[in-house]
Amino acid sequence: MIDRGDPEGAIREAAGRCSNWGRWGADDVRGTMNFLTEAKRVEAAALIRRGRSFSLSQRFEMDGPQRGWRRRTNPVHTMLDTGTDAERGVQGFPHGIGGADDVIAMPLQASTQWDGLGHIFDHGNAWNGRRAGDVVTSDGDRLTGIETTADRFAGRGVLLDVGRAIGTDGELPDGFAITTAHLEATIAAQGDSARVGRGDLLLVRTGRLTRARRDIAEGRGWGDYAGGPAPGLSFTTADWLHSTEIAGIATDTWGFEVRPNEFDVAFQPLHQVAIPHIGLFIGEMWDLDALAVDCAADGVYEFFLTAAPIPVTGAVGAPVNPIAVK
Amino acid sequence: MIDRGDPEGAIREAAGRCSNWGRWGADDVRGTMNFLTEAKRVEAAALIRRGRSFSLSQRFEMDGPQRGWRRRTNPVHTMLDTGTDAERGVQGFPHGIGGADDVIAMPLQASTQWDGLGHIFDHGNAWNGRRAGDVVTSDGDRLTGIETTADRFAGRGVLLDVGRAIGTDGELPDGFAITTAHLEATIAAQGDSARVGRGDLLLVRTGRLTRARRDIAEGRGWGDYAGGPAPGLSFTTADWLHSTEIAGIATDTWGFEVRPNEFDVAFQPLHQVAIPHIGLFIGEMWDLDALAVDCAADGVYEFFLTAAPIPVTGAVGAPVNPIAVK
Amino acid sequence: MIDRGDPEGAIREAAGRCSNWGRWGADDVRGTMNFLTEAKRVEAAALIRRGRSFSLSQRFEMDGPQRGWRRRTNPVHTMLDTGTDAERGVQGFPHGIGGADDVIAMPLQASTQWDGLGHIFDHGNAWNGRRAGDVVTSDGDRLTGIETTADRFAGRGVLLDVGRAIGTDGELPDGFAITTAHLEATIAAQGDSARVGRGDLLLVRTGRLTRARRDIAEGRGWGDYAGGPAPGLSFTTADWLHSTEIAGIATDTWGFEVRPNEFDVAFQPLHQVAIPHIGLFIGEMWDLDALAVDCAADGVYEFFLTAAPIPVTGAVGAPVNPIAVK
Amino acid sequence: MIDRGDPEGAIREAAGRCSNWGRWGADDVRGTMNFLTEAKRVEAAALIRRGRSFSLSQRFEMDGPQRGWRRRTNPVHTMLDTGTDAERGVQGFPHGIGGADDVIAMPLQASTQWDGLGHIFDHGNAWNGRRAGDVVTSDGDRLTGIETTADRFAGRGVLLDVGRAIGTDGELPDGFAITTAHLEATIAAQGDSARVGRGDLLLVRTGRLTRARRDIAEGRGWGDYAGGPAPGLSFTTADWLHSTEIAGIATDTWGFEVRPNEFDVAFQPLHQVAIPHIGLFIGEMWDLDALAVDCAADGVYEFFLTAAPIPVTGAVGAPVNPIAVK
Repeated sequence: MIDRGDPEGAIREAAGRCSNWGRWGADDVRGTMNFLTEAKRVEAAALIRRGRSFSLSQRFEMDGPQRGWRRRTNPVHTMLDTGTDAERGVQGFPHGIGGADDVIAMPLQASTQWDGLGHIFDHGNAWNGRRAGDVVTSDGDRLTGIETTADRFAGRGVLLDVGRAIGTDGELPDGFAITTAHLEATIAAQGDSARVGRGDLLLVRTGRLTRARRDIAEGRGWGDYAGGPAPGLSFTTADWLHSTEIAGIATDTWGFEVRPNEFDVAFQPLHQVAIPHIGLFIGEMWDLDALAVDCAADGVYEFFLTAAPIPVTGAVGAPVNPIAVK
Repeated sequence: MIDRGDPEGAIREAAGRCSNWGRWGADDVRGTMNFLTEAKRVEAAALIRRGRSFSLSQRFEMDGPQRGWRRRTNPVHTMLDTGTDAERGVQGFPHGIGGADDVIAMPLQASTQWDGLGHIFDHGNAWNGRRAGDVVTSDGDRLTGIETTADRFAGRGVLLDVGRAIGTDGELPDGFAITTAHLEATIAAQGDSARVGRGDLLLVRTGRLTRARRDIAEGRGWGDYAGGPAPGLSFTTADWLHSTEIAGIATDTWGFEVRPNEFDVAFQPLHQVAIPHIGLFIGEMWDLDALAVDCAADGVYEFFLTAAPIPVTGAVGAPVNPIAVK
Repeated sequence: MIDRGDPEGAIREAAGRCSNWGRWGADDVRGTMNFLTEAKRVEAAALIRRGRSFSLSQRFEMDGPQRGWRRRTNPVHTMLDTGTDAERGVQGFPHGIGGADDVIAMPLQASTQWDGLGHIFDHGNAWNGRRAGDVVTSDGDRLTGIETTADRFAGRGVLLDVGRAIGTDGELPDGFAITTAHLEATIAAQGDSARVGRGDLLLVRTGRLTRARRDIAEGRGWGDYAGGPAPGLSFTTADWLHSTEIAGIATDTWGFEVRPNEFDVAFQPLHQVAIPHIGLFIGEMWDLDALAVDCAADGVYEFFLTAAPIPVTGAVGAPVNPIAVK
Repeated sequence: MIDRGDPEGAIREAAGRCSNWGRWGADDVRGTMNFLTEAKRVEAAALIRRGRSFSLSQRFEMDGPQRGWRRRTNPVHTMLDTGTDAERGVQGFPHGIGGADDVIAMPLQASTQWDGLGHIFDHGNAWNGRRAGDVVTSDGDRLTGIETTADRFAGRGVLLDVGRAIGTDGELPDGFAITTAHLEATIAAQGDSARVGRGDLLLVRTGRLTRARRDIAEGRGWGDYAGGPAPGLSFTTADWLHSTEIAGIATDTWGFEVRPNEFDVAFQPLHQVAIPHIGLFIGEMWDLDALAVDCAADGVYEFFLTAAPIPVTGAVGAPVNPIAVK
């Protein structure tokens, strides 16, 4: 039971139970990614059976979900050179060659992304017990920047389609808190291929993106996809996230955990335990829909997954185009 | 033999011999990526033996190789929120949570990237015979944007370490044109695991990045890595690139083909055949060094490779963090 | 009378009557700015009587009016260095110095701005009869970039507060088309200091920004300030804009002319005459409210005005912080 | 005499002598701009005699002086719409209208700019005795942002052409420290119109930009204009800057003060006194050359000057296109 009036106490207690500080040494910068070993990767390779690949990334574009919260805008993509210029012959290149080139300006968490370990702090403390100001300044994350994980995100992926298993018509309603019981019921419903364990990259589908897409198709736009009410992980899953020893977890929502959050006055309390204390990598705004349809069809919920973030030096999060191969 | 005085004629003839226009229908937007089938992907999965993964991406940062040519700058990464702010308690969040967030502004071809099919034109013509101005405007690539390939780049990777096989101390000199003979000699030297064929993602290491890194370490900086003299593919390899039916090719250089180019007055003539006529995906500025060391050690030059570009809608190229798994 | 069904005919006829093509020679890049002579500037200096200065610029910030139309976003301002970093001592500077520095990404027409002469074309024609593709490519405006006017915008400003003279409670309703008769009635109502003539920088207040501010204060936000319904100049004022020989004109609205436009299917038809044919400089999103209060109080509607755009090379428009001094 | 080994002591003593903390109340955010009164502005208007205007701004463009120090890059200007697109008819607008639009990404101190009062700190202290972390966070300057001065910078400008008065061929050599004696000798040489006093906007020309332009014309590029050796104000002028009660000061150099700085290990020590303690507005990278030629010709070194920064909310500095009118 959650005492809705005491987020700070609940966070402190969960952090105490779930902390991985020091588990991989004082210098560790990889947190739960340490669980994803080469042996796990070899096992995962056996999950490629049909050769079908799925991109789990949303599109990066102006027509995205962002509404400007804390300056998180949608990507602005502009051209440095275009086909119209090339065809018009104004580019100044020889022998008939023409080119197009482009530029982007965007928050690194504008769309499908991994949170780095420097993304969230608890009372000024970052992953592994460091002080936040020693880790992330205006220059970026000096220690746990996303580039430190550049070669890690390849292993066994497993989809828990909680939307289909627990929800209605494949979707959980906004504000639905996914508990450990819901996760375990989903595993039970999906069968053996859905077991979750050490080193796994866990994908949790809520159906929230499916709903947003329907809203868009019907002319209502993204609405509050970015930051508004949504289904998501309950604060109470912190212990399960810790004890399963997963390497990372991603959802099809903006914020991973249920919104509104489960305390009266709160902002993303599960992040406050998961990132700085567990050292867990959290993915957000992933597109799990096509993959989920395929898994529902063949009953196989595990696959080989690579999800390598663009290694921006010092980034506290980064875009990724995850590829699941079944 | 190349007639150095007639790039336009040479390009026209090579384009005539190598054109894939219409091969996959008038509406095709995927070019050689059509060669990378699910069956090929299943075969490639068997190449994961040890579970070791390699990121083939350079870092995205201000200290990169770009020098401003045609407004190609290095990425500018700034913070929207920092650990110092969090520790100082000026962020306005409840229950002790703090956060860091970031933004990037960069050319999409600032660092490790795939060229999309809308990147290069021949006399105003784009891939599959479309007019350049019908494909790429200031709004971006309306037809062959990189997002159309979001789920494709997963398959068999093969490394041809021409630097080691043909060069001195693992490096080819600047201006060295890699011919079909050099490629075949490298395959022969590397052995059976280095065979190249339909649907493969071919990586060609020249050693140019190794040299740039040494220059940096010794205080000379990146120099002309971005656009200056470099080893690379000879214009004469166009037919081989076409006939092997590879799905994509990437190098450790800025520009894929040899620089200076092999005509008296020229700019990237092989691009002019490869992209609009063959429909070939070209990767540039990949970091093949760690992978090459491993391949040289175990003698195995093939691996499972995913290289999914960030799906920026309408982009004519996009950043990628390729992951090779052996 | 406007034939609402024939914008193209109306534009063609107005362009024919109002064209200044060739008036200042074939090479001219300054259009109506040629009317603002040194003699005019000296006369204007005499209008500085009390020394009170007014900034006519809105703020450049994320909380601005833009809603993403054609990728026009609000400015994103981020920090390269902060006071929290400085106080924390993580900047690496000697002897106790600390610094803050910042970066911006924004459309040049995000807020208070001048349109340059390369901003609008009529059937592919730019100012002075040039072809649009010869003037503005992906590299920007090669001939009439805003930098060519860097030292020009200083002279006599005159405010026509049509909102106060014609409107209700100082505001014109959305969709109100300001005709020549309205302008002349406003001049008559305001008296001698409001006469308009050669070389003047004319400011027309509609009250639209006042209304937007009230909407914001009352929690409704900017609404459709950027591109939605608004009062503004009628298409029929083209001849007056031409014959008065003003150097520039600015309004407190997003789009200068009335919106919805006065043809059944139309987009900014008065721009299509004013910029490429008259060669007129148009300012948008200016904040005329404080100045208007002062003018209403003292009955003096003329002043010294400098409004020098940031000289971004090749820009087709640019931010400006205009300063009126009475 | 400067003790080159003790910058911290020298700064502390100068700060003690020159502090304006509290002079305009505890809430003041305008520092020396308080000296520029309406009466001063009226007097300055009388300096407009011939109506000739001068833009004192450099161009904002990729070909600028920045070399990436602390992520200060040159402006990147890209197009959202172009004339080639308009002429090609791919923009989707009615009745033959076409448009061009643009975007910029740049440091606010990329080129001609004013430093705001939040730009520099002394031992974690900002202007008027505030703590740096209370003033400038990742959200920008919450109190003394440049927007607070939006309507202020209009008054008497005075040029001290130290390059012409003291230098050789109009230029001071790099590393030349301009002392109070040099300033006073220049005033004496230039005559009565060059007197400097309360509320003035003082422009000091060193000739450094003239030299940079010659370097560019002769193919050597900008070199170290941005941050390298340069003539500039001596640290010892702090008391003069304070006692003259000027409202602002600008130079034609990157850094205002002499570089290398006059202490053995130092970074911009005069800034550390001038901004947080005197509350002085400092302009950098101004283009004073055309104005200086005119002043040398007519012997009049005073003029009406407006120099209104773009009011970016929370900015610690901002671009400006200053206009001097004689």
